[in-house]
Amino acid sequence: MANGSIIYDEASRRMADEIIAAETRHILQRKQPERDCDCREGMFPRSAPTDRRRFLFAAGSAAGMLGSTAAMAQKAPPGAVEYDAPLDPTKVPGRAVAADGGYGTRSQFETEVRVRFPTANEYTSWSLTPLDKMVGNLTASGLHFERHHAGIPTINPANHLLFVHGMVDSAKKFTMADLKRFPAVTRKHFIECSGNGLTEWNKPTAKTVQGTHGLLSTSEWTGVQFATIAREVGLQDGATWVLAEGSDAAVMTRSIPMEKMLKDALLVYGQNGEAIRPEQGYPLRLLLPGYEGNTHIKWLRRLQVSDKPFMTREETSKYTDLLASGKARQFSMEMEAKSVITFPSGDMKLPGPGYYTITGLAWSGRGRVQSVDVSLDGGQTWQPAQLNVAAEPVCTVRFSYPWMWDGKPAILQSRCTDETGYIQPTLKQLIAIRGTNGPFGSIYHLNAIQSWAVDPTGDVANVHA
Amino acid sequence: MANGSIIYDEASRRMADEIIAAETRHILQRKQPERDCDCREGMFPRSAPTDRRRFLFAAGSAAGMLGSTAAMAQKAPPGAVEYDAPLDPTKVPGRAVAADGGYGTRSQFETEVRVRFPTANEYTSWSLTPLDKMVGNLTASGLHFERHHAGIPTINPANHLLFVHGMVDSAKKFTMADLKRFPAVTRKHFIECSGNGLTEWNKPTAKTVQGTHGLLSTSEWTGVQFATIAREVGLQDGATWVLAEGSDAAVMTRSIPMEKMLKDALLVYGQNGEAIRPEQGYPLRLLLPGYEGNTHIKWLRRLQVSDKPFMTREETSKYTDLLASGKARQFSMEMEAKSVITFPSGDMKLPGPGYYTITGLAWSGRGRVQSVDVSLDGGQTWQPAQLNVAAEPVCTVRFSYPWMWDGKPAILQSRCTDETGYIQPTLKQLIAIRGTNGPFGSIYHLNAIQSWAVDPTGDVANVHA
Repeated sequence: MANGSIIYDEASRRMADEIIAAETRHILQRKQPERDCDCREGMFPRSAPTDRRRFLFAAGSAAGMLGSTAAMAQKAPPGAVEYDAPLDPTKVPGRAVAADGGYGTRSQFETEVRVRFPTANEYTSWSLTPLDKMVGNLTASGLHFERHHAGIPTINPANHLLFVHGMVDSAKKFTMADLKRFPAVTRKHFIECSGNGLTEWNKPTAKTVQGTHGLLSTSEWTGVQFATIAREVGLQDGATWVLAEGSDAAVMTRSIPMEKMLKDALLVYGQNGEAIRPEQGYPLRLLLPGYEGNTHIKWLRRLQVSDKPFMTREETSKYTDLLASGKARQFSMEMEAKSVITFPSGDMKLPGPGYYTITGLAWSGRGRVQSVDVSLDGGQTWQPAQLNVAAEPVCTVRFSYPWMWDGKPAILQSRCTDETGYIQPTLKQLIAIRGTNGPFGSIYHLNAIQSWAVDPTGDVANVHA
Repeated sequence: MANGSIIYDEASRRMADEIIAAETRHILQRKQPERDCDCREGMFPRSAPTDRRRFLFAAGSAAGMLGSTAAMAQKAPPGAVEYDAPLDPTKVPGRAVAADGGYGTRSQFETEVRVRFPTANEYTSWSLTPLDKMVGNLTASGLHFERHHAGIPTINPANHLLFVHGMVDSAKKFTMADLKRFPAVTRKHFIECSGNGLTEWNKPTAKTVQGTHGLLSTSEWTGVQFATIAREVGLQDGATWVLAEGSDAAVMTRSIPMEKMLKDALLVYGQNGEAIRPEQGYPLRLLLPGYEGNTHIKWLRRLQVSDKPFMTREETSKYTDLLASGKARQFSMEMEAKSVITFPSGDMKLPGPGYYTITGLAWSGRGRVQSVDVSLDGGQTWQPAQLNVAAEPVCTVRFSYPWMWDGKPAILQSRCTDETGYIQPTLKQLIAIRGTNGPFGSIYHLNAIQSWAVDPTGDVANVHA
């Protein structure tokens, strides 16, 4: 009531009460289970609980009626809490709408989480998106991958400032309110950590697609273009690089070419319709479409314009690619075309031969995905997959491929081609170029074709093929 | 650790430990605040807390340094909890990554909620999306509007069944697992309750855009096409209507033309990358792109195929439009083109004359938004607004318009034209057709142009103009 009164006057409240009184009479007076339609024997449970008894995970008495689903009903998902779940929800009132309207969360039956990479130090760590459990193209904000170098800072947006200085006509500081007064743009883009799959160079290591590819997530981002801010401060002649600095305890810093900054860099404060999440850089993040995740500086507090890169630790000793020649590839920030099958994928079990819809994600840091091919025989033959959505620039695309499994061994692969004509390489092709001088074979930018082996029992495993 | 071990073997854990040990040494050994770049006097606070003192909403000692933002820092948003917020987050370790990877939520500084319409009965009620606080095109799942007729049922997806029967060759029941084996499609669509704005027919009543237009939300939906299920059960000759029935205690039922069902109806289980939220129909909802929200049956449990509509209560005594002639418009399910300015909007205050980016949302149940016009003088003259994103079919489009306010009274309006050529009407035009026979002038399908009056003090108010 208190909250509602903020936006409605007394007349509209009376109006609402009339509507509701009529509806409530209807519902309370209705005789169950009579309906104006064909309700055949056995379609719904006949004896319904009239009290809110605890049915969840103990629906034994209903097993006969529910048939094959009863066994599933008795197996509690990990992390689930016991909760009222009536056998026939039409026979009991539902949960009320929160008085203050509230901020919703997911069902208690949905329990998938990110998995933290098992490092000894939880401040310098990462956690991976459960790609195997995801549907659609976007990543739920609560399941976006994380990569932190010194924990997640707590920032009061009212105190947060962005400094823009260096080779500019007029150095300025901006509050969040200042930034939100500029025209905003909204774009859907993936972010991928360049370390995604670093365990996979030498041998198949992670068991699941969450482990091999989970440092990839897609959101709708909203913010102001760097180009707008550049006009506000005025760039001096020769300004060719920008240092971006974060507010975390690692004071993460990366140098970005001015050309990229002016082309499509965004200073984002919105994610999937609301404020960016703390783990993604709240209240302000640099978004560099198609560049490696580490460059998308989170908790952004400073942009320094210069005529040369700053050679920070994160672009010298880290986030470079040591090649076969012994030289290192530096500022290799663009993420090349990649794809992965998310169903079926590692550690799953197919119940038996028959029809399955193979599905997965494809993406490229260089633009739109043009096409995706699927192989069932480890790359000997390829068939075109269907793109489930229209490809957007620098955004994941869900693909699918109908598969009638005959029960014989199969090796499933997907291969992405982007709009520049670049074709996702095999691991062998990639190693031929990059060598194995890195600490784990190599480290960054593993965009090779992923293989999942299906054995005759239906077990799916991560393999190199 | 326990969770991480599910997806990684021992070798990859050792690998990770090496990476982390190196990074941690770096961070712990680094001397603050030396940096390889230009840190000018006063840019950041010089005396930083080394312990995690409680700074939030009491940053008095920092007022001098923070200037105009200090006043904001001291004003606690409603519902905020006290929380560690260091003045300079680079000087203290951040929050650790959750050991199990976790499921994230928003910052404690973000406190906007939906507002429940102040009805006497919280089971038959609705709550509205805070459109004035949203950025971008999507609605955060936690802020999607709600409309329930008998509360929100709690459904264990392992027990949930969909029955498809009636004029079909072979009646079938489907588990959720069955439905997920069919090829999935992903589409971004808005849902709008046809009662959105029902308080606004006779006079401007709601104070904010949350109150006038908050029964509108947009998500990325994933599910199976009804057309796929129709092939599975086989439709008989003459099958022209489908009854959809929900599992809530209201047993919500609506009749949908088969033509619409086969054209683009989806049975959705995914929303914004994860399972559909309980308030949106978990685990299964009928999605009818462009149709009024009430027809998108939530908690869907039954589809009955027939040769005529079922004339349920929700399509006879409710959800019809009583016209000036005394006759009622029935099955008026398509939502016509509409738009609204969300900034500036009702109950806001502009701090003074100067530059503002007017922004809002436009949408149409009939296809793509083609263009949006903005008026600053109550509809006497119109200028084209910019569409911030490429228009998708039956999806909201964020628009913007640059405005230099001279401090004089203004009446702001937006007007949507969709790809069919339909132009959003004025309230006067709409009433000329629909009459005022409804209980509140009329009830449903108010898609008239919205007016916000800005007075010389900067106050913004809901007006009829």
